[in-house]
Amino acid sequence: MPKKRPLILVTNDDGITAPGIRALIEIMNSFGDVYVVAPDGPQSAMGHAITINKPLYCHSVTTAEGAPQIEYSCNGTPVDCVKIALNEILKRKPDLCVSGINHGSNSSINVIYSGTMSAAVEAGIRGIPSIGFSLLDYSVDANFGPAKKYIKLLVAQCMERRLPSGVVLNVNIPKLAESEIKGVRVCRQANAYWKEKFDKRTNPYGKDYYWLTGEFINNDKGEDTDEWALQNGYVSVVPVQFDLTAHHAIKDINTWNLK
Amino acid sequence: MPKKRPLILVTNDDGITAPGIRALIEIMNSFGDVYVVAPDGPQSAMGHAITINKPLYCHSVTTAEGAPQIEYSCNGTPVDCVKIALNEILKRKPDLCVSGINHGSNSSINVIYSGTMSAAVEAGIRGIPSIGFSLLDYSVDANFGPAKKYIKLLVAQCMERRLPSGVVLNVNIPKLAESEIKGVRVCRQANAYWKEKFDKRTNPYGKDYYWLTGEFINNDKGEDTDEWALQNGYVSVVPVQFDLTAHHAIKDINTWNLK
Repeated sequence: MPKKRPLILVTNDDGITAPGIRALIEIMNSFGDVYVVAPDGPQSAMGHAITINKPLYCHSVTTAEGAPQIEYSCNGTPVDCVKIALNEILKRKPDLCVSGINHGSNSSINVIYSGTMSAAVEAGIRGIPSIGFSLLDYSVDANFGPAKKYIKLLVAQCMERRLPSGVVLNVNIPKLAESEIKGVRVCRQANAYWKEKFDKRTNPYGKDYYWLTGEFINNDKGEDTDEWALQNGYVSVVPVQFDLTAHHAIKDINTWNLK
Repeated sequence: MPKKRPLILVTNDDGITAPGIRALIEIMNSFGDVYVVAPDGPQSAMGHAITINKPLYCHSVTTAEGAPQIEYSCNGTPVDCVKIALNEILKRKPDLCVSGINHGSNSSINVIYSGTMSAAVEAGIRGIPSIGFSLLDYSVDANFGPAKKYIKLLVAQCMERRLPSGVVLNVNIPKLAESEIKGVRVCRQANAYWKEKFDKRTNPYGKDYYWLTGEFINNDKGEDTDEWALQNGYVSVVPVQFDLTAHHAIKDINTWNLK
């Protein structure tokens, strides 16, 4: 008897028409039955936001005639998309969730702001093996070709080996030709941050406003970090957890006088 | 020579007029010079979202004549508020950031959806000792009185003892009279999740839409969790980290065939 084809949920934060998710869908069609539930427009930097103050709309769309995947577009955040997929669209719990391919890096502290990774984490919270993929190229014309080999490798291993419980993968792929990528490194998240830079302007009515921009500051010199891997031509894989407890700090804070 | 008064940043996710932040400001005025930079309206469940697609406005407000604190209202997310405070409003790095008092629980997995906690985490990322406070009462008429004693205790200890690097505190306070609260427990985040429940409706134009609601599922029986503490009459304190690396999983994933 043939093995049942895996059920795969695909989402992202750049929106359902982004070239990155189209590339990811194409890859995933070779692994199983693909359902796409993705935002109807850009939802970058939405972190783990969910929509509670407005109604969510979700409708079936056909992006390519005769394509095997089934697609839904949703006006919510990436995390909303995963929630609505699990509860309203998929007939059973998916075997895998993949998010991306994000246009731009989600390495280091970016994981915490990223809608792409938050969608993957949401699936992980619900016990679904889950991976977020990002390419270090913000361009709409980014070349997702070199990423394909590594996405296939990681998806195949994830299906064969299973992820440890409570863990999802944050995969970043350098902007390099396939021949220049040196391989894969399993890493820790570099200890870095964004130093905000506000661009202050005045609107036509005389009121000041700001555009939020930032500068990425990485003082972490470790060669076991995702930043090091990416700068040295490797695909970085960070296992990410959603138990945020700083277990090592419990002992310390238990010495505080809290009476 | 008198010691310089600490500089304290206060924010929240329920908005600058919420009773919870008013109670927190009152407490913090006794600890130092308070700057409030908070959302101009409700920003619950915004997680670590930042605003990159629209301009941010931020203006000085006076909520109580003669009050010692300086207040700014911002149209962004809680994380935006912290970023704009650090970069545009405060003259120096604050000595402490406190967020809340949230109207409702941020225990267990709620930490990941919470704007209150994401604001505290953002300050933590920037190296500022930081605490998020939540009261397990969603009501606008919630009684923040019993929480005050514990907020004072924790803030005083945080200033005296310092938080470990890379750690912020997630403090939840049960909805009980002061005499009924048994004390403080330092805990780990309970392993729980929200099972979504969508309320499906049809709008006046015949289109289906959904309201996202959910059911909290906690299968974690541990007596060292925040859920256990709160259900047993304790204030829960979870040290939270923003290095999301599942360090324990690196070894496991390094056995995968990734060539």
